[in-house]
Amino acid sequence: MTIPAPTGVHPAWLPPEAFQPIGSRRALVSGEGLLVDTVHDEVARACARYGGGVRRAAPGGARGLPARGDHAGGPFDLVLALRAAGPLPAVAEQVDARFRGRRGRADDAIGDEGFVIARRDGVTVVLADEPAGLLYGLFHVVRLGEPAFGAARPVEHHRPAMRRRMLDHWDNVDVHPKSGQVERGYAGGSIFWRDGAPRGDLPRVRSYGRLLAACGVNAVAVNNVNVHVTEAHLLTDRLGDVAAIAAELRPYGIRTHLAVDFAAPIVLGGSPTGDPCDARVRKWWAEATERVYETIPDFGGYVVKADSEGRPGPFAYGRSHADGANVLAEALAPFGGVVHWRAFVYDHRQDWRDRSTDRARAAHDHFAPLEGLFRDNVILQVKHGPIDFQAREPVSPVIAAMPSTRLAVELQVTQEYTGQQRHVCYLAPMWSEVLGFRPFGPAGPAVARIVAGAAPGGERGTRGGRAPDEGGGLVGVSNVGDDAYWTGHPLAQANLYAFGRLAWAPWTDPAAILDEWIDLTFAPVAHGDREPLRRALHAIMDDSWRTYERYTAPLGVGFMVRPEHHYGPDVDGYEYTSWGTYHFADRDGVGVDRTRATGTGFAGQYPPHWSAVYESLDRCPNELLLFFHHVPYEHVLHSGSTVIQHIYDTHFAGVEQVAEARSLWEGLAGSVPAALHARVRELFDEQLRCAKEWRDQVNAYFFRKSGVPDARGRRIP
Amino acid sequence: MTIPAPTGVHPAWLPPEAFQPIGSRRALVSGEGLLVDTVHDEVARACARYGGGVRRAAPGGARGLPARGDHAGGPFDLVLALRAAGPLPAVAEQVDARFRGRRGRADDAIGDEGFVIARRDGVTVVLADEPAGLLYGLFHVVRLGEPAFGAARPVEHHRPAMRRRMLDHWDNVDVHPKSGQVERGYAGGSIFWRDGAPRGDLPRVRSYGRLLAACGVNAVAVNNVNVHVTEAHLLTDRLGDVAAIAAELRPYGIRTHLAVDFAAPIVLGGSPTGDPCDARVRKWWAEATERVYETIPDFGGYVVKADSEGRPGPFAYGRSHADGANVLAEALAPFGGVVHWRAFVYDHRQDWRDRSTDRARAAHDHFAPLEGLFRDNVILQVKHGPIDFQAREPVSPVIAAMPSTRLAVELQVTQEYTGQQRHVCYLAPMWSEVLGFRPFGPAGPAVARIVAGAAPGGERGTRGGRAPDEGGGLVGVSNVGDDAYWTGHPLAQANLYAFGRLAWAPWTDPAAILDEWIDLTFAPVAHGDREPLRRALHAIMDDSWRTYERYTAPLGVGFMVRPEHHYGPDVDGYEYTSWGTYHFADRDGVGVDRTRATGTGFAGQYPPHWSAVYESLDRCPNELLLFFHHVPYEHVLHSGSTVIQHIYDTHFAGVEQVAEARSLWEGLAGSVPAALHARVRELFDEQLRCAKEWRDQVNAYFFRKSGVPDARGRRIP
Repeated sequence: MTIPAPTGVHPAWLPPEAFQPIGSRRALVSGEGLLVDTVHDEVARACARYGGGVRRAAPGGARGLPARGDHAGGPFDLVLALRAAGPLPAVAEQVDARFRGRRGRADDAIGDEGFVIARRDGVTVVLADEPAGLLYGLFHVVRLGEPAFGAARPVEHHRPAMRRRMLDHWDNVDVHPKSGQVERGYAGGSIFWRDGAPRGDLPRVRSYGRLLAACGVNAVAVNNVNVHVTEAHLLTDRLGDVAAIAAELRPYGIRTHLAVDFAAPIVLGGSPTGDPCDARVRKWWAEATERVYETIPDFGGYVVKADSEGRPGPFAYGRSHADGANVLAEALAPFGGVVHWRAFVYDHRQDWRDRSTDRARAAHDHFAPLEGLFRDNVILQVKHGPIDFQAREPVSPVIAAMPSTRLAVELQVTQEYTGQQRHVCYLAPMWSEVLGFRPFGPAGPAVARIVAGAAPGGERGTRGGRAPDEGGGLVGVSNVGDDAYWTGHPLAQANLYAFGRLAWAPWTDPAAILDEWIDLTFAPVAHGDREPLRRALHAIMDDSWRTYERYTAPLGVGFMVRPEHHYGPDVDGYEYTSWGTYHFADRDGVGVDRTRATGTGFAGQYPPHWSAVYESLDRCPNELLLFFHHVPYEHVLHSGSTVIQHIYDTHFAGVEQVAEARSLWEGLAGSVPAALHARVRELFDEQLRCAKEWRDQVNAYFFRKSGVPDARGRRIP
Repeated sequence: MTIPAPTGVHPAWLPPEAFQPIGSRRALVSGEGLLVDTVHDEVARACARYGGGVRRAAPGGARGLPARGDHAGGPFDLVLALRAAGPLPAVAEQVDARFRGRRGRADDAIGDEGFVIARRDGVTVVLADEPAGLLYGLFHVVRLGEPAFGAARPVEHHRPAMRRRMLDHWDNVDVHPKSGQVERGYAGGSIFWRDGAPRGDLPRVRSYGRLLAACGVNAVAVNNVNVHVTEAHLLTDRLGDVAAIAAELRPYGIRTHLAVDFAAPIVLGGSPTGDPCDARVRKWWAEATERVYETIPDFGGYVVKADSEGRPGPFAYGRSHADGANVLAEALAPFGGVVHWRAFVYDHRQDWRDRSTDRARAAHDHFAPLEGLFRDNVILQVKHGPIDFQAREPVSPVIAAMPSTRLAVELQVTQEYTGQQRHVCYLAPMWSEVLGFRPFGPAGPAVARIVAGAAPGGERGTRGGRAPDEGGGLVGVSNVGDDAYWTGHPLAQANLYAFGRLAWAPWTDPAAILDEWIDLTFAPVAHGDREPLRRALHAIMDDSWRTYERYTAPLGVGFMVRPEHHYGPDVDGYEYTSWGTYHFADRDGVGVDRTRATGTGFAGQYPPHWSAVYESLDRCPNELLLFFHHVPYEHVLHSGSTVIQHIYDTHFAGVEQVAEARSLWEGLAGSVPAALHARVRELFDEQLRCAKEWRDQVNAYFFRKSGVPDARGRRIP
């Protein structure tokens, strides 16, 4: 296998130097399979560069091989072995025995994607049951860096918290007249498609798969959920284009998924109907799916956006979304595929005059009644908040409402509403809050556990006999394009990295993930010099999401962005539209009353603990105040500040923080590659300009409305 | 010559039936020249249809021909003759003698485009000095209809008030990614271009020329003033495409103009500079222009948008707009061509926080200092208002500021800001107000006289020895596309017709023009049945501009439209942008202070009379109050109503008027062709929906800001 190294493309978190600790040592790779080959090839390339050596054990031939632990000066510093591969070096046998001893005989599996790692007797040992686990183990060693070969390490067992860790690409094959090559893409074109055809740079695709494997992602949907006509054909006559991508991603343990048009039987099959309960439709899906698996045997499944923002769906036939999802699930089931069925269904032709309709309620209203009706291989894919990827939203109440439904939480790695990869906005802290949120209250399980397959209330799901840890997983909308830095803003690479890491290990501290990312990405910077860089990047990035929140829409009210492209401020931009995203500011106050008592009742969609908290003006967290309540400008927050003064203060503060971050970045000239430094510096200029625009527009808007002057006498234009 | 009758295209104001009075009679056409051929062919076709006859007099062969006036039962009911064609029928000689007698010997010219018409002894006589005059005379007879052949008519002399009556097409050759095939086009694609090439339907182009001649237009610019790369080449290697259009328009007396890229020497000529004072640039323009005239000998000239909204211009070289215009004028002068140089120059990257900058001032600030510096064949093309074709603006102060500069007033026939041909908005009353406005006060000349060539103060221009009636003329941005009704909304045809008629005869009552248009367009409706139709159309259209004004931006404040596409309301849509179009509404009041005393000083750009009127809060006309003043919501208007109550009242009234108009139209089912009726009915549904949206957004916006309830207790959402 060729390990990709596209020229002119930034290596992101896998620069050659990150492999130096491995590449300068002697390694044994033991086991068979495509992904073990990948492990071997990765190690071999590192060794070729840094003077180490690698040996591939023949099946059954590893036993008795001398390793450093056995004999001083022995040949191996690193053993990467499948346990099933046969006899292991003695030190590896010891590690395995210790692992089995800890686990007890009944449950000594390492797991499909898991690995065991230890260091003893001078040998670092990685064991796995499956090739994927070995690959993840290898990248774990890469992440550890030189310390992987330092002091002894006890046996650690690593397994992903989520079985499904997927990135959705909103990439169009054709350049769409409105949404372009990549819908909500801020990093150039698509890495998969260009102008109606495959982009043709398969090494770049493989390189992408490699980056994803190194952070833990194991599934990619290769086209936009808004499936236009050309893209619909990927399911049938253009399936070869998908297979070509799948072939590049497969060596890195990534399964390929496809977004499909619910009306495909009509659009592609000439069917007179797309009714999911029509036998012809069921047959069409079954046959089409069979052909997919003939071509791509490890195909992951379908992603569907139905009855949403103009897409076709089951409503046209008087059918439910369970009917709609199940017909696809039925077709996929024989092959082990899944349907990711998006819960993003709402009325986008709402009358802004009608304050009783509330878009926030829509997903729960539509889907909670369907609890129990979905097939086992349907995953209901729920945006993390009830609206649409705003910088601040409450967690979607759907997540607590469907205990026997497999749920995936969808995060938006692409920064549609968080600065569009022109602003630094490290999103891991937000995602971490979402994943750690306990929808049933402090005693209940966190979101991460629910989507991993643990049922609400702490009990594991048992429905339908599926394995308890199946769950739905975590899905991110990719922020990657054909840009040389992958993500437009070089620092936005950290979001992609953090997405994968949080999907694997949701409890990881975002700051620790950032450390990993810094150490890998800037591995070419000598270790001693890296500390100032690390400190500066933490100062720039750790709080950047909250900084972004400060200078944009206040107190959870959301939106206030320019319509359509969603970049930059327009306080009333969506106020009198059909999109259901309002702030209701008038001369007296602002915010959306979503209480049960006097509002839309959305607060009542949560289980009792949070329902009571959100319902209460006193107990509602500041940051969500205007999401749940309409309050006077002089309403006093928990902080002691009034709403209006809070708006002024945070907007001034946000801009100052951007200016400080920019200044810190200036100080890194010489510490990072010049071209990368220059690009980020330019982007900081734009971020600062835009932050000031947000500050001034939001402050001016609320000053004009409220007439309340800034208590600190600053200039409001 | 083939007289065009494109299939499937509505005949607009030239249905065959409009020619029945001519076509059922015996006519003589006398004279030579392309346009006399056109006259003959038009009459011949009418006669072929309706049983009359036409005779073409051979040169010198008309004398002594018997006409009805000479001998009862004689052969001619209608004589259309060039005086220079030689001996005329006796009755025509008598008409000419009477005309000459009235005029006195020193000034007996009919004029280049003029004609004399009379009816005596049962013969209708049209005389002209030039073929164009005969053509306009023919269409005058068409307009008169049957009464042209009724009672005797005294000698009338008709000449256009404006020498130059031009339509600018904002048509792109390529479909532009943002502006499409036609920028601000609401009637389908271009009649000239499609997808990068000529559209190829030359009969349609000729048919267009015919319609224009019939309302008096004599010049067409065939491409968008925003000249993109493909369109730049029309000047050189794609000149043949322009020549093909010119060949179709020529038989109807229409000269073809071209919008050019000021940077053409660079873009097309490979010049290192576009500096208008650079000898190489002058040479390039001279040579390019010479080649244009080799191909199109009657080419009209260039239209230029320079240093405006991102277009290149002389500023880049530290040169003035006079320098820029003059280099093109110098190239055109040997051939009698003109430059239409647009005065639409302003800072479109304005800081909305900066209230001292005023876009309204820009044209005057830029151009008034250049008075006296333009060459004779430069026409400064000034938008009628200081901002941008709003439904209500004051007349541009530039018109009074440049007495020795040839000025053209630019009107927007395409309804960018007046309903985009989805709303009925008959614009002639607005244009009539503009043309009748007296910038120097009641004793001074009207705009129509100034642009016709009469200098401010009532004296005719004398500079540079040019003929006193040269002037600049009237320019309209065309509302025509490849739509079957030409203009999208069938009733928008009336705007195109009225534009031509007002350019010819600015003092005509808009209601009378509408009558002409109705009688021609609905000629197929029998005369007796036409009265109810005429009454209904007057009720629908006469006041439709003021109705539109009522339900949109109030009291002259302008904009409040959705950004970019400019359709429908968005009160704050441009409020915090760089475009210089603000209303400054806050909780206390609204409007732009443009006074000298406390505002931007724009009011001071007018001569004393209007400067004083606009400066004064008491004297400023209601309809322009918020254009010139920022006032509290409780400010009392001349009507006795407060500003806020006026906003509520007019917005409720505007919607009611649309509903009434729609109801009147419903009543016309059966009176007009069914397809036309259906299209207008559909458009009325949209107009009513949109008018309600305007009403509710504007009212809600100002209610939320002001807190003042509607005095009549109506529901404000």
